[in-house]
Amino acid sequence: MANSLYEFGMIGLGVMGRNLLLNMADHGFAVIGFDKDTEKAKALESSATAGTRVKGVVSLEEMISQLQRPRRVMMLVPAGKPVDDVLESLKPLLEPGDIVIDGGNSHFTDTLRRVEYTKTSGFHFMGVGVSGGEQGARTGPSIMPGGDQEAYAHVKPMLEAISAKVEGEPCVAYLGKGAAGHYVKMVHNGIEYAIMQLISESYRLLQSAGLNNDQLHEVYKNWNSGDMQSFLLEITADIFLQNDDKSGQRLIDVILDKAGSKGTGKWTSQEAMDLAVPATIIDTAVSMRTVSAYKDERVLAAKVYAEPKIPVSADTQLFISQVKDALQFATIMCYAQGMAMLHTASEAHDMQIPLPDAVKVWRGGCIIRSALLGTFYKALKETPELPNLLLNKAVADIVKEKEHNMRAVIVQAAQAGLPAAGFMAALSYFDAYRTEKLPTNLVQAQRDYFGAHTYQRIDMPGSFHTTWLHH
Amino acid sequence: MANSLYEFGMIGLGVMGRNLLLNMADHGFAVIGFDKDTEKAKALESSATAGTRVKGVVSLEEMISQLQRPRRVMMLVPAGKPVDDVLESLKPLLEPGDIVIDGGNSHFTDTLRRVEYTKTSGFHFMGVGVSGGEQGARTGPSIMPGGDQEAYAHVKPMLEAISAKVEGEPCVAYLGKGAAGHYVKMVHNGIEYAIMQLISESYRLLQSAGLNNDQLHEVYKNWNSGDMQSFLLEITADIFLQNDDKSGQRLIDVILDKAGSKGTGKWTSQEAMDLAVPATIIDTAVSMRTVSAYKDERVLAAKVYAEPKIPVSADTQLFISQVKDALQFATIMCYAQGMAMLHTASEAHDMQIPLPDAVKVWRGGCIIRSALLGTFYKALKETPELPNLLLNKAVADIVKEKEHNMRAVIVQAAQAGLPAAGFMAALSYFDAYRTEKLPTNLVQAQRDYFGAHTYQRIDMPGSFHTTWLHH
Repeated sequence: MANSLYEFGMIGLGVMGRNLLLNMADHGFAVIGFDKDTEKAKALESSATAGTRVKGVVSLEEMISQLQRPRRVMMLVPAGKPVDDVLESLKPLLEPGDIVIDGGNSHFTDTLRRVEYTKTSGFHFMGVGVSGGEQGARTGPSIMPGGDQEAYAHVKPMLEAISAKVEGEPCVAYLGKGAAGHYVKMVHNGIEYAIMQLISESYRLLQSAGLNNDQLHEVYKNWNSGDMQSFLLEITADIFLQNDDKSGQRLIDVILDKAGSKGTGKWTSQEAMDLAVPATIIDTAVSMRTVSAYKDERVLAAKVYAEPKIPVSADTQLFISQVKDALQFATIMCYAQGMAMLHTASEAHDMQIPLPDAVKVWRGGCIIRSALLGTFYKALKETPELPNLLLNKAVADIVKEKEHNMRAVIVQAAQAGLPAAGFMAALSYFDAYRTEKLPTNLVQAQRDYFGAHTYQRIDMPGSFHTTWLHH
Repeated sequence: MANSLYEFGMIGLGVMGRNLLLNMADHGFAVIGFDKDTEKAKALESSATAGTRVKGVVSLEEMISQLQRPRRVMMLVPAGKPVDDVLESLKPLLEPGDIVIDGGNSHFTDTLRRVEYTKTSGFHFMGVGVSGGEQGARTGPSIMPGGDQEAYAHVKPMLEAISAKVEGEPCVAYLGKGAAGHYVKMVHNGIEYAIMQLISESYRLLQSAGLNNDQLHEVYKNWNSGDMQSFLLEITADIFLQNDDKSGQRLIDVILDKAGSKGTGKWTSQEAMDLAVPATIIDTAVSMRTVSAYKDERVLAAKVYAEPKIPVSADTQLFISQVKDALQFATIMCYAQGMAMLHTASEAHDMQIPLPDAVKVWRGGCIIRSALLGTFYKALKETPELPNLLLNKAVADIVKEKEHNMRAVIVQAAQAGLPAAGFMAALSYFDAYRTEKLPTNLVQAQRDYFGAHTYQRIDMPGSFHTTWLHH
């Protein structure tokens, strides 16, 4: 009898929910999906691999009644009220021990609220981040589960089966208490924003050196290997070759330079500020997408302010190698900021995030997967409580090797007037972080001068206020 | 009989509340203050100028009973619950037409909530930002009133009397509906954070050129004149001369380089992100205060990463002039970001902020008062709906004059490894804002590649998605 029941249920059969479920079916699990939309329920069945056990239904009650106990249910519905609505509708249908997973892009504070709310519901609740886009969901995503650890044991086999694998290890691991899963996913997305911004700046720099789309393809294809191998460089190389049917041009050249966003980068920046962890490259990436949207003003401003007529290095091969190193240097700063955030958040939000595992699950399946994560994984396995990746020797060795070219790129961008906000944020973060004595003593003096906010001293403990003399 | 009553009441006789009230008394108003603390109530009376009408009481009921109708009451209590508590205790004591002002540092969203809440209370409520510190409160602050315009007419004479004056105009004006007063104050504070960060970076740059404290005093004293005259430069010049009794050194050299904050800069950055207005220098200032607090990690990192041994220009006078121009350039960017924020917020939050007046009230009394504000005031009187100060010709002329030296400073800071996050954020904002075609088309291509987020085209309207080919 139990064998005729399904092992996993999905609420919401949009492309992500459907693909995750089909992925599970491909790994031998009997799965059932619910969507109010008949078409979507049918599409689930029709797109299943032959010989797999997949069923689509349009009644939540029907799906729940056909699940093995404890029932394992994931929802992939839009963040916000829809998640709360699903929880309400599940309440009368579930029994103690059943497991509900929110696999969507919920803000971690919503997840925290729901963790509290469902404590008296009788069923287990987990917030689980999933990254990898449509294709990743189908063939192997990165999965970031957090919350109820007892419940995780029940879904671990399915999640490990469907996740991406790197060096034999699944890109899924229990990432901590409360909203840890969605928190790690949020930071992932912040890093994603930052790296995308850096790559776009590198594109502009290389364009300024005269590279055409074919050459850009070659450069990014070459960069995407060894220590610099990454999904984002891989797709960047692809992008420059894509032809556009409508114009006959390369598609990249007809895409408008206004970037959209779904707000998850902003969440990361706002939370980093609350947490008092600098995440300056993420902040910059968020703001630069914003600047991009001010197209009309930019067109006006371009008429007011001429671009400096100072070209970047005439030695194109040298310049390409400088930009390459700058990109790797700055990318490391993005991960360093993100991981520093997780380090602090883990304690601040009582999540007990195992940092090595957070990096481990990012190594495959997700948007920010890259060879660098292998280096970071090793660093964090050595020192799980490392407050900042920059303090690890292996990471420092790479940073120091690239530092000179990073500076060279900033010099050229500043002289040529090329927008390089992300690169500049990366270098200035590094130069502030590695400086023993910052000029912030002056800020404290100013604050005490005009607002009596007090200051600390280098030579004795305590807080001090001075009546400053006006000269 | 009415003559024996008081014209203005203050709740909370901390240094700000007391000084504002004494300032009012000095201008001929009969004032009364309430504080539960007997000492504070007494201190109010004992510090009053001879011949002025000032009374301190320890009973709220007593104060209210001795006020002329409509009663005019300001509270200066810590932001948050204390403000709500005062509102509750006032409810039974006030009558229709009475006016209550929150003059503290409330978050604008709290003020908005209270505006709604008090709509049925029978009395008027206004959120009013006050800047100038202790001394400004006593001798002439900048005052930013918002909310109930009918109520403003009743307090306008007092607020105008006590405010700072610039060119005969009071540094107070009605700044818009709802929470406009506290909103403008918040943006003021964000700009303040940003300019303080820039000045601290200029200090580090000048130090690196070998300037000692006496020379730093001279430089900042010289800068603080003409177009660059500003309160923050004025106190910076003072700071370098302040001696320390405890060590016998200059005080600046024994102050620890960890900067504190009360969070208002962070509010500005987080709100700017919600508003989708770039405020990158403010963001950077917030983050650099944060970095400064990581002293222990910075000490470790300084051991891992050596500072580049590339000095700044050997021509010290040239370098000083470059840093001077860079500071002015970057300071203009701070104001531009803040005013762009007010421009957008005015409509987004339905505040109808008169932008020229916002700048007008900042010209005197407040922390960010500066000669530049006169230029901006003129620009906004010409074009009140100016979306960004950088689009004004007079502003553009200054920016263009300083641009070359701004770039020169970034080049030297990048080469020398000097932390210049604020300066770099200023230049990179400028270079992004004045660029007609940003490389953000690549970000959109990436988003569409991995997430089917769609993109816009330059040659036709609509949203498009492409199935990108992997090569």
